[in-house]
Amino acid sequence: MRSSQYLLSTKKETPASAEIISHQLMIRAGMIRKLASGMYTWLPSGLRVLNKVTNIVREEMVRAGALEILMPMVQPADLWQESGRWDEYGPELLRLNDRHKRDFVLGPTHEEVITNLVKREVSSYKQLPLNLFQIQTKFRDEVRPRFGVMRSREFIMKDAYSFHLTQESLETSYQNMFRAYCNIFERIGLSYRPVIADNGSIGGSMSHEFHVLADSGEDAIAFSTESDFAANVEMAELTPSNSAPDAPQGEMHLVETPKATTIAELVEQFPVAVEKTVKTLVVKASDSCESDLIALLVRGDHELNEVKAEKLDQVAAPLTFATEEEIRRSIGAGPGSLGPVNLPIPFIIDHSVASISDFAAGANIDGKHFFNINWQRDVEPGESADIRNVQAGDPSPDGNGVLEIKRGIEVGHIFQLGDKYSQSMNCGVLTESGKHQPLSMGCYGIGVTRIVAAAIEQNHDKFGITWPDAIAPFNVAIIPMNMHKSHRIQEAANQVYNQLLEAGIDVLIDDRKERPGVMFADMELVGIPHQIIIGERNLDEEKVEYKNRRSGEKQLMALNDIVGFVKGL
Amino acid sequence: MRSSQYLLSTKKETPASAEIISHQLMIRAGMIRKLASGMYTWLPSGLRVLNKVTNIVREEMVRAGALEILMPMVQPADLWQESGRWDEYGPELLRLNDRHKRDFVLGPTHEEVITNLVKREVSSYKQLPLNLFQIQTKFRDEVRPRFGVMRSREFIMKDAYSFHLTQESLETSYQNMFRAYCNIFERIGLSYRPVIADNGSIGGSMSHEFHVLADSGEDAIAFSTESDFAANVEMAELTPSNSAPDAPQGEMHLVETPKATTIAELVEQFPVAVEKTVKTLVVKASDSCESDLIALLVRGDHELNEVKAEKLDQVAAPLTFATEEEIRRSIGAGPGSLGPVNLPIPFIIDHSVASISDFAAGANIDGKHFFNINWQRDVEPGESADIRNVQAGDPSPDGNGVLEIKRGIEVGHIFQLGDKYSQSMNCGVLTESGKHQPLSMGCYGIGVTRIVAAAIEQNHDKFGITWPDAIAPFNVAIIPMNMHKSHRIQEAANQVYNQLLEAGIDVLIDDRKERPGVMFADMELVGIPHQIIIGERNLDEEKVEYKNRRSGEKQLMALNDIVGFVKGL
Repeated sequence: MRSSQYLLSTKKETPASAEIISHQLMIRAGMIRKLASGMYTWLPSGLRVLNKVTNIVREEMVRAGALEILMPMVQPADLWQESGRWDEYGPELLRLNDRHKRDFVLGPTHEEVITNLVKREVSSYKQLPLNLFQIQTKFRDEVRPRFGVMRSREFIMKDAYSFHLTQESLETSYQNMFRAYCNIFERIGLSYRPVIADNGSIGGSMSHEFHVLADSGEDAIAFSTESDFAANVEMAELTPSNSAPDAPQGEMHLVETPKATTIAELVEQFPVAVEKTVKTLVVKASDSCESDLIALLVRGDHELNEVKAEKLDQVAAPLTFATEEEIRRSIGAGPGSLGPVNLPIPFIIDHSVASISDFAAGANIDGKHFFNINWQRDVEPGESADIRNVQAGDPSPDGNGVLEIKRGIEVGHIFQLGDKYSQSMNCGVLTESGKHQPLSMGCYGIGVTRIVAAAIEQNHDKFGITWPDAIAPFNVAIIPMNMHKSHRIQEAANQVYNQLLEAGIDVLIDDRKERPGVMFADMELVGIPHQIIIGERNLDEEKVEYKNRRSGEKQLMALNDIVGFVKGL
Repeated sequence: MRSSQYLLSTKKETPASAEIISHQLMIRAGMIRKLASGMYTWLPSGLRVLNKVTNIVREEMVRAGALEILMPMVQPADLWQESGRWDEYGPELLRLNDRHKRDFVLGPTHEEVITNLVKREVSSYKQLPLNLFQIQTKFRDEVRPRFGVMRSREFIMKDAYSFHLTQESLETSYQNMFRAYCNIFERIGLSYRPVIADNGSIGGSMSHEFHVLADSGEDAIAFSTESDFAANVEMAELTPSNSAPDAPQGEMHLVETPKATTIAELVEQFPVAVEKTVKTLVVKASDSCESDLIALLVRGDHELNEVKAEKLDQVAAPLTFATEEEIRRSIGAGPGSLGPVNLPIPFIIDHSVASISDFAAGANIDGKHFFNINWQRDVEPGESADIRNVQAGDPSPDGNGVLEIKRGIEVGHIFQLGDKYSQSMNCGVLTESGKHQPLSMGCYGIGVTRIVAAAIEQNHDKFGITWPDAIAPFNVAIIPMNMHKSHRIQEAANQVYNQLLEAGIDVLIDDRKERPGVMFADMELVGIPHQIIIGERNLDEEKVEYKNRRSGEKQLMALNDIVGFVKGL
């Protein structure tokens, strides 16, 4: 490609509205332009990257035995009514009417359409297992679209759906997709981790997210320092400590704490370590509990994990915190002065709370705390459970090493759905013994447009994007200096360009009438991995300069060797 | 691909709802399934064809120098208000609201979005000309979707838009796109014709349609038997005849024709040739005419061309036929008894009417006609114009040969739009002399999904589809007979399969446990161009059978030669 016939559309200024680096660089490098909130046009450089990502995803899905199909983007409402999601799905589901006033939705996902299709096309167990995928535009009417294509309303997703007679077959396909996803992210050239994930609202039994690691990631992931273990922080489990609390050091005593209604204030105003304080959080109890409210106790330096708490039998789902008024009515004190001693409602303590001694907590009297509380001696500990988020330094749940926390960007998600959709939509086959059986389903998503943004979050420097070779918009840039004034430079540049084109290499020659500084800055910004700089002085010695975009290393090479060198990269 | 791991989804029965052969065969061959009216899921065999068509279109667009981009499918209403089409476009434009009640449309086309983009990205004449294209899902809310993907609501289109400083530059790009379109249809392997077309509502000055020729086509196209001339029947022009009318044979006389209110009835009841009759059609006149109504006269065997008629100065646009009441009020007779003699309103005659003699026409008295009318002698002919549709046998407008009429399916359309959008949306650049100038635009569409259906309308027989090689879902089918009972057959089939796969050939092996008859019928239906049939008897002589799907020709070949033979096809 010749830049004079291309739409580079680079910008010097960082757009004020772009909060994260990938969004800023995608605009500055001429990759995307905003059409409306959460809707972007992909310019040539952006689409070149997107198409390379798409091709890798497609190739690996086909290699894994999945069959490509293409379902409509507009879907009739009746399928969503059949699955029950017409009512369950919130305003992210964009609903619309056609000219005959019939109800439709803009597809945010395709479980309903595919289940309906397979119900009609698959009648015998002999046709199973079946794995169908598509690469297609989706629409989710996000309440607050932001970060460019990282959280947009219109986006491209690869969504695959597998259908099975048995759970074993589902698990085999799930593992197969797991490996295909690893292949995809490895081929793209990203540092990523598959992590055990919460199933969220999609239901089902087993799920992994695939995260691209980047400091700007929205999700916290817990890793073992010594093993493959990785889980979303919300999902990493902790086991009870084996060590009993230390022996009590002092008598429990009541202290006036009028200005300490938070743990931070307590440890600032009194000589107590934060690890020896306890937070008491009050939530609605479930029907199986003898009380309306129940208290959850975690250490002052820990965070309650709401996903884990919600799974407790005694806690009502969805997890609902008690209001201050409800707390006062039941306990007689405000939320800043609660603790286990003399607590009139039941409570559950986190495992780590069970093993501390001489700790401080509210006295259930406004403005007062107990210090030197010890379990058994001062109060019965009752039930302990895993109800906090893991932290760096916690033991890894698999017993190997300790946990480290990193940030990640979710770019893929695989689920074992079981029969959630096949039951409600009556999708089954006749088994060998003639019995009608609903199918087991898996679903497997990749955010294709989001991968592009995530790759930039992971691969950039102060000059611009440092693309992995596999998805760079161009692999080689030829930068001829003052080409329009020198016939020699022009000739050498065109010769190298034509030879690289013939070798099937994706090459951009910057033949604009621009100053070298402008050309260098643009090629760095756009992030072309390999640069060939052609200037008068080097050409006197039949040489050109090669520069590696990522390392910044430069080397002089013979003009006659450069094509062979680049082909060999 | 192994058919046991594929979703063939063939059907024996012709679906009742499918009216045309391509729709029937696409359902029977497992290519598409209806999700809702005008919305189809593409199954694996259909998508394989669609992707091959898409790749050819993309390659030829890139080769022609167009740059690929991708615009959102959902578009904000304000751009449509800016261009004026928010009000002009009818209910085919699907309008919707997001969660914040803002107005959007589902894009039926992208002139507004691209004009807005180029307005923001292109500021200097140095960036021109520019040709941007995308391959993308569109939505048009057709009042009566039918014929499967031939006239669907959701469909895939390649749309390109070019931007220019001058009309000359636009014409160069237009010619360039014209050639690219010819390359596309030639590579796909279709019999097609570019035809001069009416611009329709999109505006602008010059336009060609690309038609795939097929008897079932909705459009009539006029071709020269001797030259390249081809035009939509509505657009083919006719020049005045050079020959004067023959000398009168008889006196004009009034005849009672109480039962003849149409030309058909007149020629049935009276001894007059249809070529010697004249139809009189009354329409609203324009302001430049001294009368409210004006009559248009064409020969009894000809059809009025409404597009041509509407372009006449004296005729009001849009063309509006007078009601019977309006006719009676002005002329004093009903529409079945009109003619040029004693007509109280102005009239225009078609060129071919000017050259006839001794003709019959209504007398402007109910139930009466004049016979043996002759121009000049009986009535002044006044103005003549080209206002009829061409017919087979008419002289070609380019002077070479005569016209033939064929049916075509419109699959592409290129337009010179001029400044229609760039004026209303203020899209211009600074010229070399510093003046702000609106850009000239061209737009170029291809109905990618429709091409698949059109290819089938042109390429089928009683057994199924006869795909051109370039877009067949698979190029070779291996049909092993009773493979599951014979180890030898299995081994030979797998050997051929693996060798073809290695050679990069798109091959399907039918390894289902089905009777040979079922397998033959399915492969014929799906339309795989080359079949290799492996059976016991031939294998005894180390031979296999090759069958050409289109010609039906069969030949025995040595097992060891078949791979080389197929690779050479």
